[in-house]
Amino acid sequence: MSNLRDEALHIHRANKGKLETNSKVPVRNSKDLSLAYSPGVAEPCKEIYDHKESVYDYTMKGNMVAVVSDGSAVLGLGNIGPEAALPVMEGKAALFKSFAGVDAFPICLNTRDIDEIVQTVKLMEPTFGGVNLEDIAAPNCFIIEDRLKKETNIPIFHDDQHGTAIVTLAGLVNALKITGKSFSEIKVVANGAGAAGIAIIKLLYHFGVRDIIMCDSKGAIYEGRPNGMNDVKDEVAKITNKDKVSGSLEEVMEGADVFIGVSVGGLLSKEMVSKMNDDSIIFAMANPEPEIMPEDAKESGARVIGTGRSDFPNQVNNVLAFPGIFRGALDVRATRINEKMKIAAVEAIASLVSDEELHEDYVIPAPFDPRVAPAVAASVAQAAMESGVARHHVDPEEVAEKTRQLTLIDEE
Amino acid sequence: MSNLRDEALHIHRANKGKLETNSKVPVRNSKDLSLAYSPGVAEPCKEIYDHKESVYDYTMKGNMVAVVSDGSAVLGLGNIGPEAALPVMEGKAALFKSFAGVDAFPICLNTRDIDEIVQTVKLMEPTFGGVNLEDIAAPNCFIIEDRLKKETNIPIFHDDQHGTAIVTLAGLVNALKITGKSFSEIKVVANGAGAAGIAIIKLLYHFGVRDIIMCDSKGAIYEGRPNGMNDVKDEVAKITNKDKVSGSLEEVMEGADVFIGVSVGGLLSKEMVSKMNDDSIIFAMANPEPEIMPEDAKESGARVIGTGRSDFPNQVNNVLAFPGIFRGALDVRATRINEKMKIAAVEAIASLVSDEELHEDYVIPAPFDPRVAPAVAASVAQAAMESGVARHHVDPEEVAEKTRQLTLIDEE
Repeated sequence: MSNLRDEALHIHRANKGKLETNSKVPVRNSKDLSLAYSPGVAEPCKEIYDHKESVYDYTMKGNMVAVVSDGSAVLGLGNIGPEAALPVMEGKAALFKSFAGVDAFPICLNTRDIDEIVQTVKLMEPTFGGVNLEDIAAPNCFIIEDRLKKETNIPIFHDDQHGTAIVTLAGLVNALKITGKSFSEIKVVANGAGAAGIAIIKLLYHFGVRDIIMCDSKGAIYEGRPNGMNDVKDEVAKITNKDKVSGSLEEVMEGADVFIGVSVGGLLSKEMVSKMNDDSIIFAMANPEPEIMPEDAKESGARVIGTGRSDFPNQVNNVLAFPGIFRGALDVRATRINEKMKIAAVEAIASLVSDEELHEDYVIPAPFDPRVAPAVAASVAQAAMESGVARHHVDPEEVAEKTRQLTLIDEE
Repeated sequence: MSNLRDEALHIHRANKGKLETNSKVPVRNSKDLSLAYSPGVAEPCKEIYDHKESVYDYTMKGNMVAVVSDGSAVLGLGNIGPEAALPVMEGKAALFKSFAGVDAFPICLNTRDIDEIVQTVKLMEPTFGGVNLEDIAAPNCFIIEDRLKKETNIPIFHDDQHGTAIVTLAGLVNALKITGKSFSEIKVVANGAGAAGIAIIKLLYHFGVRDIIMCDSKGAIYEGRPNGMNDVKDEVAKITNKDKVSGSLEEVMEGADVFIGVSVGGLLSKEMVSKMNDDSIIFAMANPEPEIMPEDAKESGARVIGTGRSDFPNQVNNVLAFPGIFRGALDVRATRINEKMKIAAVEAIASLVSDEELHEDYVIPAPFDPRVAPAVAASVAQAAMESGVARHHVDPEEVAEKTRQLTLIDEE
């Protein structure tokens, strides 16, 4: 770990961070200047003034995503503030470019006020083709995303919620194939009512799961629970736990088919897993220590286990989702990222694991599988066009091919 | 002009604008990911959390300038709005990089409200090492700049004001050498009370000029003038026109040594020039048509003539100033750009025209003279250190050398 620490500090210090801006056209002499700047630049300005939509043709907007954070919930570090969050946001921007050729720029804001964050992003809308909200603490992240979706006309995507949910669901789609169960019949217990947990619940519901119990530190969440509720948990209670079961996580684990942990390392005991149904599925995504270690889960009867870690099988890594999702959304000039686009992303990711390859230890493609971003981009673009949120029509296969050409990753 | 139009539209459309973001470190495989992103990125985050100033060591902040506009006064196009302004701001960002290796990013804001612009820039302060305000109409630009200078801790520079003023003054320094007059004895008439005009007046005053008359469309500005005054003109009246001369531009041109036009093409007649003192100096910077054409001014007795155009001698081009100014300010982590730094820039630019080369048609270096940005950067860095606004001390010669290495321009 000390080597990683030194090396990580070194590459950040030696390069003064990770992100730079470059001109795509040369500006080396007066001829260049007359085209890229005065007087030639007046021509695209006039075109855009006459046809506002042509800002997508003549500027960077259509390929540029803002990575916006207030630094309030960064990695496992918590509320470290906007300056200390900047290395993460630069890294996120680098991933956008490497995985899918999407330009991205970090905007770390010196406020945690919901109105101020919403207002700032709204005012910047002319510059960006989309907004990736990042590492903003719950419940503010829900309110900020909801308001921006209503008050802007570009895709708004809180990756900590939806990226995690999409990749988890992709893994679950494949895990269910192995265990032969269907979304409509499984009982899911989710632990941790933060950004990711809530988004996973909502997406499970969209996939037809009707028997869900979500737990927080006070146990099962149900409608009318007298303590520790808030607006978001009230919403959760409406689509989960119809029988209003109360009790501890341990109690509600009885008879579960799927456990989804976005909570605290080591919190799931072998005993709890042994109370689950046969062929149980566990996504234990606390980092760096999962809710239960994969070998302990296996010993207690779990059949498929995923974690957030790269050193175990079935890593739930958001990088499988967000680059391709934005690539697809930008290429059709989508006005939003809707549920159909998220479901398309889930299915694209899941489908890359062929029936022949499908295995307990391989339900999710590897993070550097170069097929992922092109497949996700194409499916998301298609879903956007079919669901009426695209302002520009493209051939999904061209989106995939373009993404393949733009990616900078190595197959591992 | 039609060829330029087609070519300009083509390069903007073919490249989808001009600016892109790139990762300075590779993110091609899981080893890269572990250093640039999770888990390694937590290390610089923790360092910055413990020592906020180290954000300059570990992130892009120290080399990143925001180019902020509301699109209200773009080129000669006027109030075309934030989308249509984006090509100009991308071009500006490209110039920052090409001339001095400064990363810059356009932020076009969907508001003309002073409070909203100020608030937005303040909230983004963690991300940027400096802010270049661009193409914001007067008088808002004055108020926005003043407030941001007070309410932030990074350099704020409205280029339309100070860039133009600095390059004009550099030209005037050399023109006065030719005519043998001194700043303290000349009479200056300036026409046009917009952003550039006001800034030029203020900088002239700092250079010791005491006989200045500024005109707007209503003629000479003087303290207590009953019509067409505002806060900024009241301020101008306090440092100009001590005798409260009233009258038209034509009337006050009598006996002037220097005319500075940042107004309207063709507005200065040959007759007005002929009323000036011998060896008169004219900077006629209206674009594309100057206040008077150079040959007409010459015929009427003017000795040195500068314009904003690249096809006449002595072009006043802001690109001589802003890249080097920000390079120098960033390299010493300046908290502001003060008058001493502006004067240092003026003198650095002027000094590049040697006494041997000095000539009526060569008082300002060419825009692509590769000596300019390094010289300006070094002088500005030194002035920042000497005037106590530097948070980081460097050898000015190293600043110059670094700028030389970073520049992407060709000598013409």
